[in-house]
Amino acid sequence: MQNFDYMTPTRLIFGRNVIEKLPEVMAQFGRKILLTYGGGSIRKIGLYDRVKELLLDFDIIELSGIQPNPKYDPSVLDGVKLCKEHGIDVILAVGGGSVLDCSKAIAAGAKYDGDPWDLISYKVKAQEALPIVDIITLAATGSEYDCGGVISRIETNDKIGYVDTNLFPAVSFLDPTYTFTVSKKQTAAGCADAMNHIMEQYFCEDSTLLNDGFMEAGLKSLMVNAKKCLDDPEDYTARAEMMLTCTYGCNGIYALGNSMSGWPCHGMEHALSAYYDITHGEGLAIITPRWMKNILSEKTVDRFVKYGVNVFGIDSSLERFAIAEKAIQATYDFFKSIGIPMTLREVGIDESRINEMAHHVAVNEGLENAWAPLLEKDIAEIFTASL
Amino acid sequence: MQNFDYMTPTRLIFGRNVIEKLPEVMAQFGRKILLTYGGGSIRKIGLYDRVKELLLDFDIIELSGIQPNPKYDPSVLDGVKLCKEHGIDVILAVGGGSVLDCSKAIAAGAKYDGDPWDLISYKVKAQEALPIVDIITLAATGSEYDCGGVISRIETNDKIGYVDTNLFPAVSFLDPTYTFTVSKKQTAAGCADAMNHIMEQYFCEDSTLLNDGFMEAGLKSLMVNAKKCLDDPEDYTARAEMMLTCTYGCNGIYALGNSMSGWPCHGMEHALSAYYDITHGEGLAIITPRWMKNILSEKTVDRFVKYGVNVFGIDSSLERFAIAEKAIQATYDFFKSIGIPMTLREVGIDESRINEMAHHVAVNEGLENAWAPLLEKDIAEIFTASL
Repeated sequence: MQNFDYMTPTRLIFGRNVIEKLPEVMAQFGRKILLTYGGGSIRKIGLYDRVKELLLDFDIIELSGIQPNPKYDPSVLDGVKLCKEHGIDVILAVGGGSVLDCSKAIAAGAKYDGDPWDLISYKVKAQEALPIVDIITLAATGSEYDCGGVISRIETNDKIGYVDTNLFPAVSFLDPTYTFTVSKKQTAAGCADAMNHIMEQYFCEDSTLLNDGFMEAGLKSLMVNAKKCLDDPEDYTARAEMMLTCTYGCNGIYALGNSMSGWPCHGMEHALSAYYDITHGEGLAIITPRWMKNILSEKTVDRFVKYGVNVFGIDSSLERFAIAEKAIQATYDFFKSIGIPMTLREVGIDESRINEMAHHVAVNEGLENAWAPLLEKDIAEIFTASL
Repeated sequence: MQNFDYMTPTRLIFGRNVIEKLPEVMAQFGRKILLTYGGGSIRKIGLYDRVKELLLDFDIIELSGIQPNPKYDPSVLDGVKLCKEHGIDVILAVGGGSVLDCSKAIAAGAKYDGDPWDLISYKVKAQEALPIVDIITLAATGSEYDCGGVISRIETNDKIGYVDTNLFPAVSFLDPTYTFTVSKKQTAAGCADAMNHIMEQYFCEDSTLLNDGFMEAGLKSLMVNAKKCLDDPEDYTARAEMMLTCTYGCNGIYALGNSMSGWPCHGMEHALSAYYDITHGEGLAIITPRWMKNILSEKTVDRFVKYGVNVFGIDSSLERFAIAEKAIQATYDFFKSIGIPMTLREVGIDESRINEMAHHVAVNEGLENAWAPLLEKDIAEIFTASL
């Protein structure tokens, strides 16, 4: 086991109707709120109106239109400007991981005098940030329980994971009923995103019985519950379990003390969605089985055997590489079975920029230091195999 | 899934030599430290001297002699007095769960003007508490990652679980090498304590795939690693995994959203160790299989089937009650195999006060509302079966 230094101070308020506590929670932080959200989905489910009703006594400034793969310009820059102009006390992010990720960058930028990109690009370490409260409407990223966010800058094709311990949400409201109207496409993509968060931690040099059990339980929970949510979008228990399983995704609890894997699929997918603005979870699902095939070797095979036997119930008496190959196929088949388009062409990506993207990943993501190292040619091969 | 409101703000600093960070951590809280500890074990392993060396620049007041099943009088009362007299800024608890539990009660009492028993007995709600830092030397209670403690008051045979969100340690240092010298008896008792923490959460009305997987992983990790620690007390990896598995025991992460079970074994064991001052983990191990036999019924059998199949690998094709009985026997056999005395007589308890203890439990522990309700006669039967 590796040494670690770990804390997740976020308060989770989980379940039906927990939003009734919103006024008392917000009052802890002040009266001036920046309300951040995306498009119309929070209006459609009545959540926008309910939030405004509950917060009648507060001063609310709004930043709407935050997109998936949230953009530095205009969203982060606009949000920072609003916070400074209005002396905002606290940010209330309502939506999915993109809204929250964007709000984290705004929270840091609002307390910094220079260009917020200095913080996101790690040129300057944030000294503080505005407090953040969120109401999550999509089970996927786990941003509600970690201190990271992913921000895209279009002109440079950058999609950067920005992590800083100042950025833990103070409070996350998780009401599974808000996810009842999530489309089949987004339900499946959220499942794939959360499964990949676990896989990125599972495939590493050393793990423990405890962590493997946690992660295998997480993977099985996601597979079973995503199917239930697709069959019956208002299955409360399935939506709830999926939501909680996603919440643990990136805060470290699944694998405290494990060696770092390098998060290779995220490194590669960030290029795909930076260049083509595709759905993150779909990009991950497409890459994952091709990455697995690429790294399968004498060094890695035993982790695939454990994964195959414990997650998919593959017969442990088979030969090791046979188990691993069945496990990789089972991963592909599962994603396919929940309706994810499993080729890059289906999401609008062809071979034209593969070499450029592979070069971008090789230069920026440090995957030559991953547990199973990836050089530029490996990355290009994985992208090509994903076409 | 049940609604929940959850937070664990404690920072865990885990691994070899992490104590080097002690001065910078303590400096965040002030210069005046109450150092609390038990008997000589922290001196024997050199930890006392190392702490004093690292904290040369601080003012340290000491409270030593804190016993297992820590006592309200004198330990809590003495600690509160020292904090008030010396204007203590922060408590540094060095030892096992008893030292930390006692320090939590001191931390609350130090910020309260009246009799600290008002707080422990829930007559008055603590408004604040001194910050607590701990260095844990025993894998068992999980007190380092929760906001509860257990305090005994001898004259009334009370052993009370005192829980308050002000009592989360600010920082817990966990260096597995400090547990290398823990005796076989205490290693086994710590394992039984931690296993029972999980079982108290596992046997309930509703759980999820995720939580069951977490808890089954925790139980398997404890069983495998306790045996390794007994075979080779300096097996770092086994000590480390056991330490982390214990740490999660009571902070809720194993079972967020599960219905409450009522923690029946702890309710019963608290009477045993209040009346006879036995080792808590041994008391739990003795009671657990007898409690299981008592509650096995049509209502509970399916949980025992899941437990038996997933934790002990019992053949799932057997008849349900046969699986349950094998699971209960396997629980008993495991505790026996790690050297725990499995009868009350072996730990000095005879039948003379069973009825009195059963009455005390029935009046004070609310076990008639447990998932599998226990009336006074059930409690007496479980104690008698444990003789």
